[in-house]
Amino acid sequence: MGHDYEGRLSRARERTGAGGLDGLILSPSPDLLYLAGYDAPLLERLTVLVLRAVADPVLIVPELERPRAASSRAGQLVEIRSWRDTEDPYELVRRLIGSGHAYGVSDRMWAAHLLLLQESLADAKFVPSSAVLSPLRERKDEGEIELLGRAGQSADETFARICAAGLEGRSERDVARSLADMLVETGHDTAAFTIVGSGPNAASPHHEPGDRRIHVGDTVVLDFGGRVGGYCSDITRTVVVGERPAEVEEIHGIVREAQEAAFRTAGPGVPAQEVDRAARSVIEKAGYGDAFIHRTGHGIGLEEHERPYIVSGNDESLEPGMCFSIEPGIYLEGRFGVRIEDIVAITGEGPVRLNEAARDMALVD
Amino acid sequence: MGHDYEGRLSRARERTGAGGLDGLILSPSPDLLYLAGYDAPLLERLTVLVLRAVADPVLIVPELERPRAASSRAGQLVEIRSWRDTEDPYELVRRLIGSGHAYGVSDRMWAAHLLLLQESLADAKFVPSSAVLSPLRERKDEGEIELLGRAGQSADETFARICAAGLEGRSERDVARSLADMLVETGHDTAAFTIVGSGPNAASPHHEPGDRRIHVGDTVVLDFGGRVGGYCSDITRTVVVGERPAEVEEIHGIVREAQEAAFRTAGPGVPAQEVDRAARSVIEKAGYGDAFIHRTGHGIGLEEHERPYIVSGNDESLEPGMCFSIEPGIYLEGRFGVRIEDIVAITGEGPVRLNEAARDMALVD
Repeated sequence: MGHDYEGRLSRARERTGAGGLDGLILSPSPDLLYLAGYDAPLLERLTVLVLRAVADPVLIVPELERPRAASSRAGQLVEIRSWRDTEDPYELVRRLIGSGHAYGVSDRMWAAHLLLLQESLADAKFVPSSAVLSPLRERKDEGEIELLGRAGQSADETFARICAAGLEGRSERDVARSLADMLVETGHDTAAFTIVGSGPNAASPHHEPGDRRIHVGDTVVLDFGGRVGGYCSDITRTVVVGERPAEVEEIHGIVREAQEAAFRTAGPGVPAQEVDRAARSVIEKAGYGDAFIHRTGHGIGLEEHERPYIVSGNDESLEPGMCFSIEPGIYLEGRFGVRIEDIVAITGEGPVRLNEAARDMALVD
Repeated sequence: MGHDYEGRLSRARERTGAGGLDGLILSPSPDLLYLAGYDAPLLERLTVLVLRAVADPVLIVPELERPRAASSRAGQLVEIRSWRDTEDPYELVRRLIGSGHAYGVSDRMWAAHLLLLQESLADAKFVPSSAVLSPLRERKDEGEIELLGRAGQSADETFARICAAGLEGRSERDVARSLADMLVETGHDTAAFTIVGSGPNAASPHHEPGDRRIHVGDTVVLDFGGRVGGYCSDITRTVVVGERPAEVEEIHGIVREAQEAAFRTAGPGVPAQEVDRAARSVIEKAGYGDAFIHRTGHGIGLEEHERPYIVSGNDESLEPGMCFSIEPGIYLEGRFGVRIEDIVAITGEGPVRLNEAARDMALVD
């Protein structure tokens, strides 16, 4: 992996100081992966990268994970200090950075760790690290966009394969398993999630695939993704099985138009909420405003969901390098639902889709 | 699943009040699964079970996940309230429980959520929920021990199959993939982790399986586990490939003796640290004290690692229902390592192993 970790670490350090923070305390999370290339086990023992505004970074790890950390990219980038199970790692952090008054901690740090850090550094204020790191992480470089693009292509190919395989007679759980396998077969390192909502379950946006068998006449929402080189895919297509119910076709047309409108609106300098507005207007005009029960999208990268969020109230301007989902939906409780989602990258010339699977309403067996 | 959620909720509520807390705020985590049977998506949108000492519990979920929450076990147990992407869920929590002065939050709650709760409930003190819930969660009932037992048997069978399949010529990563597949084939719902450390990598207790090919003369540490009905397995065996180096055989014998000594020491009323001491004494007497670089074990249940921790300094008494690993190891940096791990349940009559795979040093092809 050719990521520019040195540059990232140095920019993060600059921003930490400029943001009025004395340091960042980063636990196993996308932050740690982004800055130091270390994919650490997420466990109760404290692992943190301590990034100080005025000194070199130090990675604190449990003694038994020292060899793992040392053989990761982080081993070449930062000093590693380890602690044994009978020692207090919070005291180690305090000794390193105890004199400051404000620190950023990973958004995903476990509360059990944060509460002990707050006890150990009792006079300090803590803020989420995203305040400092999101502006860096949300502007993807070429290498990152290439990985997101590869993930998108593999997701597209997975959609083609699941359609070819057919859905009728299969349980949601079985289709979900196939999607996970196909994501890996077509190029993902790992599958991350596979939503299969059929019939009335399609009206539950985050439905957990279950025993329900798919039959002719069902609408099926397929929403799935995985990781390529750490970077995520996330695509949704809605298909019908064996026949094309006129009402589903109509709703699908509205959602597709909303998705197109949002895509055409996105571009450098456009506030994120205007992309949401563009999709929402189409759905509201068609009379289904109340049935579009979530924001239009979310940023994507090392996390499935990250900044920028495409939501009313977010006036952050889109900029080249930002990558996010556009995924309007209409959900009719107890009946069916439709969602269409692509990942989009902002370039200097405008938006580019990282998913190209057909957005027509597919009829599958 | 026949878990007694009503009883768990009611005991948790009693303990919350008795522990001087006004309520618990539980995010998607083993806590939420344990108390309400809801396996919620772990994302940036706030989902929390608010368990108040003096009122009925309420589950707060994002609007788009309301159907998922309602169709889970939690839907029959607690009131559900939802919020939309343009609303502030922390304000919703504050309105529910804002008058209290001390709250417990899930140990695994994300810092981004905790920091906003701390802002919203500015005068309150927060503590980890484990202070209240661990004493409940660490005493497993019959149904829980049965699930841990089934997971253990499937892990045993996985070990037998990987030995039969042979290791020579394969990469660590390839063996890790086979272990994950075999865990599912032999009865796990999902595989969770698969450590394969070969040759010098066996000296890295949490080694990440890589491209190294296994060859004759290698020592290989296999440490893997998954979930059955939410409950975890975790087993380690150390094997040699094609031949039995005398030094490895000697070290293996010491580790096995340490593991046996710890097992014989465990029982109702015994302080957790004495089990650690029993294993450590054997290894220290053999002259390898410095090479046993971690505690002897950890509790296991809905989490891979949970209380009770089998570590020096923990004088908590073991009690019937407690389940934990006993996993001493000796690690010789740059050369090889040996670890042997079983899950053990404490009963009124003494300790019972939930893993029965042979603990001899296996010679594999």
